[in-house]
Amino acid sequence: MRRVAVIGVGDTKFGELWDASFRDIGIRAGLAAVEDAKISAEMIDAVFVGNMSAGRFIEQEHIGALIADYAGLARDHIPATRVEAAGASGGLALRQGFMAVASGLHDIVVVGGAEKMMDVSDIASSMIQSSASDQEWETELGATFASLHALIARRHMHEYGTTREQLADVAVKNHKNGSLNPKAQFQREINRDVVLRSPLVADPLRVFDCSPSSDGAAAVVLCPLDDAKKYVETPVEIIGSGQASDTLALHHRRDILTMDATRIAAKKAFKRAGLEQKDVQLAEVHDNFTISEILAIEDLGFFKKGEGGKATEDGRTALDGEIAINTSGGLKARGDPIGATGLAQAVEVVTQLRGVAGKRQVKDASVGLTHNVGGTGATVIVHIFRRS
Amino acid sequence: MRRVAVIGVGDTKFGELWDASFRDIGIRAGLAAVEDAKISAEMIDAVFVGNMSAGRFIEQEHIGALIADYAGLARDHIPATRVEAAGASGGLALRQGFMAVASGLHDIVVVGGAEKMMDVSDIASSMIQSSASDQEWETELGATFASLHALIARRHMHEYGTTREQLADVAVKNHKNGSLNPKAQFQREINRDVVLRSPLVADPLRVFDCSPSSDGAAAVVLCPLDDAKKYVETPVEIIGSGQASDTLALHHRRDILTMDATRIAAKKAFKRAGLEQKDVQLAEVHDNFTISEILAIEDLGFFKKGEGGKATEDGRTALDGEIAINTSGGLKARGDPIGATGLAQAVEVVTQLRGVAGKRQVKDASVGLTHNVGGTGATVIVHIFRRS
Repeated sequence: MRRVAVIGVGDTKFGELWDASFRDIGIRAGLAAVEDAKISAEMIDAVFVGNMSAGRFIEQEHIGALIADYAGLARDHIPATRVEAAGASGGLALRQGFMAVASGLHDIVVVGGAEKMMDVSDIASSMIQSSASDQEWETELGATFASLHALIARRHMHEYGTTREQLADVAVKNHKNGSLNPKAQFQREINRDVVLRSPLVADPLRVFDCSPSSDGAAAVVLCPLDDAKKYVETPVEIIGSGQASDTLALHHRRDILTMDATRIAAKKAFKRAGLEQKDVQLAEVHDNFTISEILAIEDLGFFKKGEGGKATEDGRTALDGEIAINTSGGLKARGDPIGATGLAQAVEVVTQLRGVAGKRQVKDASVGLTHNVGGTGATVIVHIFRRS
Repeated sequence: MRRVAVIGVGDTKFGELWDASFRDIGIRAGLAAVEDAKISAEMIDAVFVGNMSAGRFIEQEHIGALIADYAGLARDHIPATRVEAAGASGGLALRQGFMAVASGLHDIVVVGGAEKMMDVSDIASSMIQSSASDQEWETELGATFASLHALIARRHMHEYGTTREQLADVAVKNHKNGSLNPKAQFQREINRDVVLRSPLVADPLRVFDCSPSSDGAAAVVLCPLDDAKKYVETPVEIIGSGQASDTLALHHRRDILTMDATRIAAKKAFKRAGLEQKDVQLAEVHDNFTISEILAIEDLGFFKKGEGGKATEDGRTALDGEIAINTSGGLKARGDPIGATGLAQAVEVVTQLRGVAGKRQVKDASVGLTHNVGGTGATVIVHIFRRS
């Protein structure tokens, strides 16, 4: 297998993008990545697109061909492939692109992710997001996506003494990071009180424990590492990639406080990378709810099981902590346009490893990780990146 | 790249499967393929699933994890990936599986396709199928999927003298083949009159020119050719694979009577296979409308442009013709559960190349081809198979 580098990144602002359509934002992010890589369109061999539910959000399927078409690539008839794994769609697309280059099948690949969520009502959006869960055993019985995470949160508090305040601290940290990111949906700092006084969604989770609905897109350009220096000064290599599945329904899991798919995807990625957790300076993890970040930093092996809340409270995951978690603001403040999220994580890590993350730059960052989750953990994708 | 073989095939009957859910039929097809390959579940390294629009048909996304879960594979946390390209979703999934084995990334891969279309109204089904086309430039303006194909048919008649009767002959042939296939949705022969007297859908296309809505699933098991003889007596090798895109909207094409994506995908697949059209004895082509089969057999290079209608009328594509087209009954009579179709094509070709197709067996078949189309030709996948 060949070594693979990211040579271009691009994204849109995340948020309520009323002036742009799905195809608009998809193309904007893709073209920004292509421009950043300093390649021309004729050089692209294939496109992979991550998207969760354009069928329901904008009544359009066939998203791979759509994006290739409006990017002007239909002329060259290049293959365009959409992949879907709910919230992990973006990371899954990145993994397909990575494999296509690593295997020698393609040389230059553009991987994009996009979702346009704001064109439907809040109720419809909530229902669509619930289709990441088990429709017959969870959704139909009234279990919303937030309520499933509330079960996890309540049990984590009971089992490990995680406090309501520690959950809030995840949001406070991520909003602080988001305030330093001009592409973030929310760029205002908040404090514990704001979280604790916000309306209840599903006890114990409140509005500020939840990531927002968002429009947005993000993209990267990949090529063999051996060719990367032709295009950019600072290629970032993808040194590890792992994917794992679990039961769709939460109640079928061995333990709802451990995402086994995170553990296994991380194990595979670290093995391939030949690194350990201590070698990583920053990670973008899937904080669709505050409790999710706590589970993630535990299951990725950065902290012991049950100690994620305390670690957050103690500032160990802050920008200047032992490991900077969600420097972009995370799904919580950067926003969560579902299919784009996995790619936005990659864009942030590459930006950090290039050393151009501005006010939120992590000092001496050389290795970063992305962690992208579908549903309540039925699909998890982990990638590890290193400055080359 | 390693050589890849199909060692197992499985499918459900296609039709109105009121007694089975989406997950039921997905699992039935997958388990049948696994049983046919005589492997055990622990040996499976990865799953790829083709599905167009479970989000809208059954309000369930995250289809890869769903199928892996209900197949009992979540226990082993194996990667499960859903791909989508409208009507080409099944073929695209097969291509991902093929690449995963060819690249050496995985050894034993199950590829499945499924769609449950009958649980929504006919109107809703039609709207969902239209989301394969360009929503902003076709669907919103009232162009149904049938009406776009009607434009192609009318122009083909004008340009090449293709007759209304020749279109009917495609349906007559495919229903005849379907009558020999116990898994087909329609197992009755029809004649020209039945087609010509059936209700008009979009002039000149009538009900019997259109493939039906269907429930159904199909699956194959892939492994490296070098290992295949361990499992089965007659492995079938995938010797060619091609994928190409085109504009989503029909009016943006160079020529609406030529699917360039078919031409290019076929060219790639034949090049890889090192074969020519004359080496192929049977092909499953994407006859979602009768006119589609005529375009397909022309653009795949089996007949000259404009001569597809005449060739059909003359019986050159019949079971005992020069090249047997849609021996399964095709989408027209076998049925068209969208995401399953590309896999059902593969199941039929493998069954024929094994020489076990019963009453519809093509004599001395050694090479077969599948041709799977998304939308009006914005994604096309071609595979070529050889008895090993």
